[in-house]
Amino acid sequence: MANINSRYADVSENYMFRDVVRKADAFAKANPGVEIFKLGVGNTTEPLVPSVVEGLRHGVEKLASRETYTGYGDEQGDARLRKALAEWYASRGVSVGPDEIFISDGAKPDCANIASIFSDESVAAVQDPVYPVYRDSNIIAGRRIVYLDAVEANGFVPALPNERADLLYLCSPNNPTGAAMSREQLKAFVDYALANRSVVIFDAAYAEYIRDGSLPRSIYEIAGARECAIEIQSFSKSAGFTGVRLGWTVVPRTLTAEDANEGTLNRYWNRRQTTMFNGASNIAQEGGLAVLSPEGQRETRAQVDHYMENAALIRAGLANAGFTVFGGEHAPYIWLKCPRGLSSWGFFDELLEKARVVATPGAGFGKNGEGYMRVSAFGHRETIEKAVRSIVENIKP
Amino acid sequence: MANINSRYADVSENYMFRDVVRKADAFAKANPGVEIFKLGVGNTTEPLVPSVVEGLRHGVEKLASRETYTGYGDEQGDARLRKALAEWYASRGVSVGPDEIFISDGAKPDCANIASIFSDESVAAVQDPVYPVYRDSNIIAGRRIVYLDAVEANGFVPALPNERADLLYLCSPNNPTGAAMSREQLKAFVDYALANRSVVIFDAAYAEYIRDGSLPRSIYEIAGARECAIEIQSFSKSAGFTGVRLGWTVVPRTLTAEDANEGTLNRYWNRRQTTMFNGASNIAQEGGLAVLSPEGQRETRAQVDHYMENAALIRAGLANAGFTVFGGEHAPYIWLKCPRGLSSWGFFDELLEKARVVATPGAGFGKNGEGYMRVSAFGHRETIEKAVRSIVENIKP
Repeated sequence: MANINSRYADVSENYMFRDVVRKADAFAKANPGVEIFKLGVGNTTEPLVPSVVEGLRHGVEKLASRETYTGYGDEQGDARLRKALAEWYASRGVSVGPDEIFISDGAKPDCANIASIFSDESVAAVQDPVYPVYRDSNIIAGRRIVYLDAVEANGFVPALPNERADLLYLCSPNNPTGAAMSREQLKAFVDYALANRSVVIFDAAYAEYIRDGSLPRSIYEIAGARECAIEIQSFSKSAGFTGVRLGWTVVPRTLTAEDANEGTLNRYWNRRQTTMFNGASNIAQEGGLAVLSPEGQRETRAQVDHYMENAALIRAGLANAGFTVFGGEHAPYIWLKCPRGLSSWGFFDELLEKARVVATPGAGFGKNGEGYMRVSAFGHRETIEKAVRSIVENIKP
Repeated sequence: MANINSRYADVSENYMFRDVVRKADAFAKANPGVEIFKLGVGNTTEPLVPSVVEGLRHGVEKLASRETYTGYGDEQGDARLRKALAEWYASRGVSVGPDEIFISDGAKPDCANIASIFSDESVAAVQDPVYPVYRDSNIIAGRRIVYLDAVEANGFVPALPNERADLLYLCSPNNPTGAAMSREQLKAFVDYALANRSVVIFDAAYAEYIRDGSLPRSIYEIAGARECAIEIQSFSKSAGFTGVRLGWTVVPRTLTAEDANEGTLNRYWNRRQTTMFNGASNIAQEGGLAVLSPEGQRETRAQVDHYMENAALIRAGLANAGFTVFGGEHAPYIWLKCPRGLSSWGFFDELLEKARVVATPGAGFGKNGEGYMRVSAFGHRETIEKAVRSIVENIKP
């Protein structure tokens, strides 16, 4: 019988974002004409930079002419884009070959699909609070999950697992806490993985938000990572491609399966992608090439700077008013501690009703998120400024 | 230990297309300056039609301005596009609601991912010869496969399975045989599914190539299909979006799990997509809206007509010369029987060496494909004409 994959029942329906929207909409309806400041979703808000728009236009125009039209591309991505990314890594002192880079339609699908190349018996370690995709994709596949606490006491960077984990999901800079791992912290995970023949799955989607040059922006800055780590990256947050859809995953050729006879993980991911994916949009890939041009890098860096100025405004504004804030220094997220012992949802209601600000309840990201709010620095400058002012004026820290 | 999903070893590496390319490249190298006619890959070759180019341009320009920029859209797709597709179905007498349509980055990922909502114990029936994605995605998930013979004796439309199958993959018009199922043939599968509580997964990616109005272009033209069928569709072949990437999957709300307490399949696919997918490109979706406009439908229909004229030229040219041909009447593929008892690869070599034509060996699609070649009607008109002439002049039927 066509029975359902019963493991879907183990994934909590993500009511959180729906409830956030529902509550915000209800408030808006009850208070017509009142401005609401939405700092909930981690969604880019500024238009694409000019050089990237030009690249996308070029992508469209190529399809309009018989001489330049292309249909299916390689599932692994446009060779020019893979090469440009390898050069981009090289410019940062990281050695990654074009054939180790797989272009995708974004980091989220890759984060969700990568575990499919590993056995169902693998144990997956994820941080708590967690970007839910790492957890839910493994639950759906029936894998056991180990949670690594990311709490105030450890600066929101978890300790090594104290039980065996085969897959270690790390996100740095972190969504939702905004914490960025140091070299030493990341090295500890790489060393654990090498010692235990585990694989680190490193989500670097927010790497471009790092302001301190001493913090690693790629896991391959750490010695040994080419033997134990997969890196997932994206143009979404660095170039405003959240809607355009373009990312990539690096699977080094030096990363072998537990049983070396089984070959390299690169080969397995290649098999997965050629079987189940049909390449990223050729228009988006032309846009990606434009992002990596000198002009594109300059312009997108300025845009990231702009969002990070937003983050600084939120962080400073709330801290000066007496709130306890974390993150927001190398990430577009401020991890705000709920004042007066309030729960995430309790403070959500207060922020909405008294300050007309929508933020994301930390409890939605796991038990350690309870008592926190994720405040996003994505938003137009005036929205950010008004939201901070409204919180400071209307909410007791 | 981070062991590999060992089921990947059960998926034959798809050497076929690689070998096709390798052999064609070797021939080209050995015969410099000699024109080779490539009718192998099912890849669109004509530029996008003007109204669709305009739609894509509009998609890019929206992202260039602060007032119209959008980031993440709904994972299920742009509400305008879902509505336009529901209206497009309605214009053909098919009733599908916008909330039953899930926009994706193409039919291939959906064909590969759809089975993940079903239990690992489900038995999947696929045609032989088969578009490999249906088979391989189920092998990787560990499901048992039942093969349904599609051979000359049954007009390449398989009989009902004579053992229990939970999932029934049908592709009509068919890739690779070009056979299109009649209403009665499709109804037999719908009735089987209803009687057995199975689910038909109907790949209608080539529906627009149907020339005979009495043949079903959507499975929902068959009574009862809304209670047992999922339909997967695409803009790839109907509008040249092979590289742009845009498709959709219909999961009716009337389609419930075997255990009705588990709810509707629509809810499960929604869960899968919201967890593991992040929406199709907003630029591609603007293009999809343009395809569905009156002008877009007119222009893309003319393009499909053009490819079908190619198919008619191939079919008639080869048949008149004494070859045995199937398909190509409601599909862009001609299923050519290898002459003189040659194997697929034997005839491949002869076609390449004597006629300088590249076609796809049928054996690559399964055991029943042995002794056949898939000849694609995608190609510029002059290439098609030269290829047919070259076969007729140089190959003995």
